[in-house]
Formats: sequence, structure tokens, C-alpha cells
Amino acid sequence: MRDHVTPRRVVIIGGGFAGLFAARALRRSPVAVTVVDRRAHHLFQPLLYQCASGILSEGQIAQPLRKVLRRHPNVDCLLAEATDVDAEARLVHARRPDGGALELPYDDLIVAVGMRQSYFGHDEFAVHAPGMKTLNDALDIRRRLYRAFEMAETAADAEERRQWLTFALVGGGPTGVELAGQIREIAGHTLDREFRTIDSAQARVLLFEGSDDVLGAFGPHLARRAARTLRSLGVELHLGTLVTDVGAHGLTVRDRAGTTTRFAARTVLWTAGVEAPPIAAALARATGATQDRAGRIAVQPDLTLPGHPEIRVTGDVMSLNRLPGLAEVAMQSGAYAGRAVRHAVEGRTKKPKPFTYRDLGSAAYICRGRAVVKMGPLHLSGVLGWFVWLFIHIAFLTGFRSRLGAVLSWAVTFATSARRERAFTSSGGVPRDRPPRRT
Amino acid sequence: MRDHVTPRRVVIIGGGFAGLFAARALRRSPVAVTVVDRRAHHLFQPLLYQCASGILSEGQIAQPLRKVLRRHPNVDCLLAEATDVDAEARLVHARRPDGGALELPYDDLIVAVGMRQSYFGHDEFAVHAPGMKTLNDALDIRRRLYRAFEMAETAADAEERRQWLTFALVGGGPTGVELAGQIREIAGHTLDREFRTIDSAQARVLLFEGSDDVLGAFGPHLARRAARTLRSLGVELHLGTLVTDVGAHGLTVRDRAGTTTRFAARTVLWTAGVEAPPIAAALARATGATQDRAGRIAVQPDLTLPGHPEIRVTGDVMSLNRLPGLAEVAMQSGAYAGRAVRHAVEGRTKKPKPFTYRDLGSAAYICRGRAVVKMGPLHLSGVLGWFVWLFIHIAFLTGFRSRLGAVLSWAVTFATSARRERAFTSSGGVPRDRPPRRT
Repeated sequence: MRDHVTPRRVVIIGGGFAGLFAARALRRSPVAVTVVDRRAHHLFQPLLYQCASGILSEGQIAQPLRKVLRRHPNVDCLLAEATDVDAEARLVHARRPDGGALELPYDDLIVAVGMRQSYFGHDEFAVHAPGMKTLNDALDIRRRLYRAFEMAETAADAEERRQWLTFALVGGGPTGVELAGQIREIAGHTLDREFRTIDSAQARVLLFEGSDDVLGAFGPHLARRAARTLRSLGVELHLGTLVTDVGAHGLTVRDRAGTTTRFAARTVLWTAGVEAPPIAAALARATGATQDRAGRIAVQPDLTLPGHPEIRVTGDVMSLNRLPGLAEVAMQSGAYAGRAVRHAVEGRTKKPKPFTYRDLGSAAYICRGRAVVKMGPLHLSGVLGWFVWLFIHIAFLTGFRSRLGAVLSWAVTFATSARRERAFTSSGGVPRDRPPRRT
Repeated sequence: MRDHVTPRRVVIIGGGFAGLFAARALRRSPVAVTVVDRRAHHLFQPLLYQCASGILSEGQIAQPLRKVLRRHPNVDCLLAEATDVDAEARLVHARRPDGGALELPYDDLIVAVGMRQSYFGHDEFAVHAPGMKTLNDALDIRRRLYRAFEMAETAADAEERRQWLTFALVGGGPTGVELAGQIREIAGHTLDREFRTIDSAQARVLLFEGSDDVLGAFGPHLARRAARTLRSLGVELHLGTLVTDVGAHGLTVRDRAGTTTRFAARTVLWTAGVEAPPIAAALARATGATQDRAGRIAVQPDLTLPGHPEIRVTGDVMSLNRLPGLAEVAMQSGAYAGRAVRHAVEGRTKKPKPFTYRDLGSAAYICRGRAVVKMGPLHLSGVLGWFVWLFIHIAFLTGFRSRLGAVLSWAVTFATSARRERAFTSSGGVPRDRPPRRT
């Protein structure tokens, strides 16, 4: 594609939901689309925790981007990390995995780089408390979860055993809640009768959240229901607490009254916050765009940047009307940006309508048979919520060849508590031996 | 189990086929069995190459050892690496993943530690040419295979592109042949129409083998058939060659005439040889047992060590009558050792019959619809061989819950060329940036 007489060139940075939906919206346009991502796969992020907990395999939640876009002959996928944007020359600078440089000229740029885990200025926590944003994170968490029980089985004394059987989760959003439910299920059901020395069901799960609610975004009613369900599962909720330190053997938190408490736990997982990746700051520098505190880029109602009608920012990294970082927002904004380019190519001169997000609702899975779902005025929880969750996720996996596989894996897991994907590699050593991950 | 009044204690080092079958043979004996392995899973090694090539997931070829042995209440599984044997005190010394020490006293010891990849004194090759013995190896190879095509797509020039599209395999045994077939299938079918710049079908696969035959163990007839099939698939065979150097950009080989040739290839995979892990030498030192050139431990006809009727060596690491390193030999010798302990516990005084290997045949998969099978006088190849291969592997996956999953994955792959498990993580960087793996 790159060596021919060039049609209008659209570069999309990022192959997540926003980037994918932007590329799809350009399918029938006479444009040359380049999707550049530092990973070769598109990840179905809402089910990442199920990969971490051993229900689904990597291939069931991640498919090669170029396979997903195979029937889009005008789309080229490149494995490289965008490092800078030259808004004057209309060039994206990117780096290949071996360090080689690429220059990608564009006529239109769609930025869909997403957000990464934030440790609120304490990046040193990452060594001890992995986040949950990438496939690598999920495999790391899978390793830590199942290895913790193995380590408890051979622990030198009762205190060390208790520490290996204590799991601390930082962040009470959907990911934290989903992981908490998964760990209690693994401890109480999956590992049933497998250990001789420890009783896996004794494992403690502590959930730390800065606000007064878990799943606060679902409103007070569902938040209360979720808290009750978590407590009935044996999850210990510590609301209104801020984590001030994380180490290999536990974490320290401060409550509203200023009291500091230390909790011993050999496994700490972090889902507390997000921040924009470095390319967002580079884009802001190049265009004069403004960033919010987390680094999101402020966009105009049509998702373009002020003074740069050729640059559109979509998905989690877009700052517009305080829209939340949800897969649905990413899909709709990505598709909007793609359509806007298509309309421009088609020569439509009418100013496009501003982007509006159609809230189709949101859902969080707590455990087998329990989920909370918010769809407009409809607030569901318990078994009914769970059925709706199941239906939504089966529907959304459309286009993924692995939908049938995921449904079969769920059927087996829900029916028998068995988890098929429990194998972990020994790479990485135990937490304290690991080098920092965020380079 | 460990704190009670102690029944006869059997320690099994290694949870591969030999260790697993030994533990199973002791199911109904009043003994306390401890299986110690540095990995928490039992690996179905014969299908490891299918995990590497993206057909099967980790969970389809590896299951937690303690789950496989869940219904054996007298078996305790420990995640630790055996580091030494004190044959006087009858103690196995082991190291937990965090470095902590364990001491495992035994009345009977069954050694089933297997073999690891050997680079014939050139361990420095491992950085550039991973072996194929562990789940980690398979995921590393999966990453290198699929990333090579991605790197070719963005290559700076035609020469670099050619190098990324050249795959060199060292070793013409079943694993090398299976990988060669898989790479040609990936290049020609799986990736069909996914790339815009490169033609993946142009990928070259070079297979280097020191002897005059690929699959020499199958006899001259099947070896010739296999060579013909590989050539028809486009695999370039370089027989009678020895690899003298491996680097990030290729390898150097010497043929029988002494001529040295350099081949440029950015992906080199090593399946050429095996050697015993360090614990074998430790055992030999502790017992005075002798090792063969590859480090295998010489055993008596009843698999015990001279002067140590309480120590039995089984599986790949056992040296007896030049038996090959096959899953079937491991299963039969492990089961024999377990039964011998059972008979001793039951007070049978009759000297046991020597171990004899019943050769049930062997099989190697070349590509979709092509395999070679040797069962006694029966030599099969082509489609018939393939059907027999399929039947054997479906039968042997019994006991693995994932048998149905594997069969479904095969059905999809064979019918459509699609491979579900192509997602790879970015950890590890490109080959030349990787630290040595063999520490």
C-alpha cells in the first residue's frame, strides 16, 4: 500500500476498541488506513480478569489485530509504539520492537491510545502490585494468584502461611470487585480438596477503596447491593482508605481519621487508577492541546483538537464531558471519528453533529450467579443481573472467533467450578525478585 | 500429612509422565507420597509444539499437578526444585521459588526429573535459539514466530525482510520436524491475506540435522517419506550439518566435507539435544551411580541404583538398554517403579521381574493430513498415519479434562487453518535484547 500512488492517509494510533471501531468505520472509504499499536493483538479488555483468574485463555480474549481487520483491504497494521507526533509535518514517529524508527505520514490522525495503570506518583508500587491493563498483567496476576497457594502449602510457619493466604486488592471499581469475587471463588471452589496442609477456603481477600462505595459509578442502590454480596462472599471491605505504602509483604493504608494501619499480604493487586501514556503528553506539546489531571486530552465536541481539524482523539484518553473510561464510550467515539473522516473524504461539507454518547448501560460481574447491571432506569443485581451480564458479553464477543470457546469455557466453569487455564510459567520469580515493570 | 504418625514415605522428584505414573501406581498403598516439582503443572509434552504454534492454549496441554492427583489423598504436591540428595540420611534437599529451603525425608526415592535442552557446551546459543522443553519455551517460540512476520512487515529494506522471513530449525527429530511443518502451515495458510507488504507464504524454513536423516529413529523407510513430505511443504533440508555458531542474525554450519556456510535468519529454534539437569549429577555424587555422556543415570534392571535398593530412576533421565526418551518409556518406567514400591510395602519378598519396555510405537505429526507412525512391523505415513496420530493423541489426553477442548481446537484448525492462540505478550524484547535464559 505504502509504495503506490497515495490516497488520503489515515493513521490510527492504538488498536483497542476505539481504534478498531474507527478502522471499521472507514472500510468502504477510498483511504489508506494504518493502525499502529505496540501490541499485535486487539484485547477484549472487559474479560481480562477472567484470563487472570484462569477461566479463559489468552486467545479467547485477544486476537491478532490484523486478523480482526483481515477483510479490510485498505487497512495496514504495524507493530510499533508511537513515540511522538509532528503536527506541522503531519508525521507520527514510531519505534519498532527492535528499536528501529518508523515515520508515518498522515492526512488524518485518530488517537486511540487508551490509558494505563496509575500509581498516583508511586510507580515503585508496581513491582509489588501489578495492574490489570494488558495480557502480560493478566498472566502475571494468574501466576501470583496460583503460586500464592503453592507457597502457603510449603510455608515455614503459620505467620508466613497466613501472609501467602491474604490477598489485598487496591481499588473498588469493576476490575477490583471482579478480581475479589474471582479470588474467593478460586479459594473456596476451584482449589477444593487439592491441598493437604492448607485449607484454601481460609484465604482472606481484602478490598481497599478510597471512596465510601465499591462500584460507586453504578449509583448508591447497586453499590450497596454489591457491597453486601462481596461481604457475603467473605471479601473484607475497607472503604474510605488510602494506600500509602506497598511492599513485598503487605501494604499500609490511612483512613479518614488519619489512622495508619499495616496489613500483611504477600499478594497485592492494583486497579486503583489510570493515567495517559507518554504519547498523550507528546501530542499535547505538538498541538497545544490541554490535558486533564490524569493526562486525558481535551477535545472539541466533534473530537478534534483546537486548531487541528485533522486530529481526532477518541476512547479512554479523550476528555469530553467527563465521559467514563468504558468500552462502550471507546467504541462509539472511535466509530464517530472514523465516520467523520469518511464524510470528509466523501466531500460532505455540512458541519458534523457533535459526538454524543448513547449510554447502553454498564455491568460488573461479582461471582458465579451474581452481577450488577445498570441500564438507564433499570438497576439489576443478583441472578437476574448475572443473566443480563452473560447475554451482553456473549453478544459483544461477536466478531471474535472465540465466542463459542468462551461460552463453552464459561459453561464448564459455572457448572463445575473447574478452571481450565491455571498453568503458569515460572518466569518472573517471586514478587520481590522482579525488576520494575514500567520502563 | 507431614505432621502425623508417618507411614512409609515415598518422595518422587518430578511431575512429568514418569513421576505422575509412579504416583498413580501408589494410589492404593498405605504410603505418604510427596511429588516435588519446580513447576506446578504436569505438561503434556508431545503437544508442546502445538502450544508454540498457536493451536492449543497452555491450559490444554498443562494442568496443575495437584488437580491431576486430586483424588489421590495420599499424595502431596510441593512446588520446589530438588537441589541435592543425601543418600545416607535419606533426605532430598529442595528450594522453594523464594529461595527458602525444604528437607524431604524419604524411605523410597523415585527420580523422574527428565532431561533439559542441551546446546552441546554452547549454552550461549540459548539466548538466540530457544529450546522446546517447557511451557515458557513454547510461549517464547510463539512470540518469536508471530513477531518475526510483524517485523518483516515493517522491515527497513529487502535484506532485513528476508532475514525476518527465514526460520532456522536445528535438529531433525520429531520436535524439529513438527515445528518445521507448523511454520510452513502458518506462513502459507494461517496468515493468508493478513499482511499488506510481505507475502507470508514466501517464508523460508531451513532444517539442520547432523545425521543423514530426519526422523532417523523411525527407520529408513519412514525417514525418506518424511523428508519427501517436508520438501514438498517447502522445508529446505540441510542434512549432515553441524551448527558451529548461532547469533541474533543467523547461524553458521559445517558440513561433512568441512565447508562452513553462514545462513541469515532472525529466528533460530533449537531442538537438537538433551542433557540431564544438575540434580542428576548431585544424585550420582551422593550414590556413586554412573552417568552416560548426556548425564543419564545408569540403573539396574529393576531401575534401582547399585547399593541403593530404595532409589529408583525412571523416565528420560534413566539410562537402561539405550531406551529412547519417549513419553511411553517414561510412563511405563514410572508405573513400574511405583508398583515396585507397592509390592515392597505389601511385603512381597519375591524378587521383581526386570523392567521391560513394551514398544507401543511412535508417531510424529508433519502437517495437516500428514504424519508418520511406527508400530512394530507397521509403518504408516501420509493421511493414514495422520489418522492414527490423531487417534493416539486423543486417547492419551484421557485424564486431561481438556481433551474435548483440544479436539475442538484441532477440528477448527484442521478445517479452517485458523489458529486461536496467536496472542503473544511483549515481554522479552527482541531476541538480541534478551538475557540468557539458562540460570
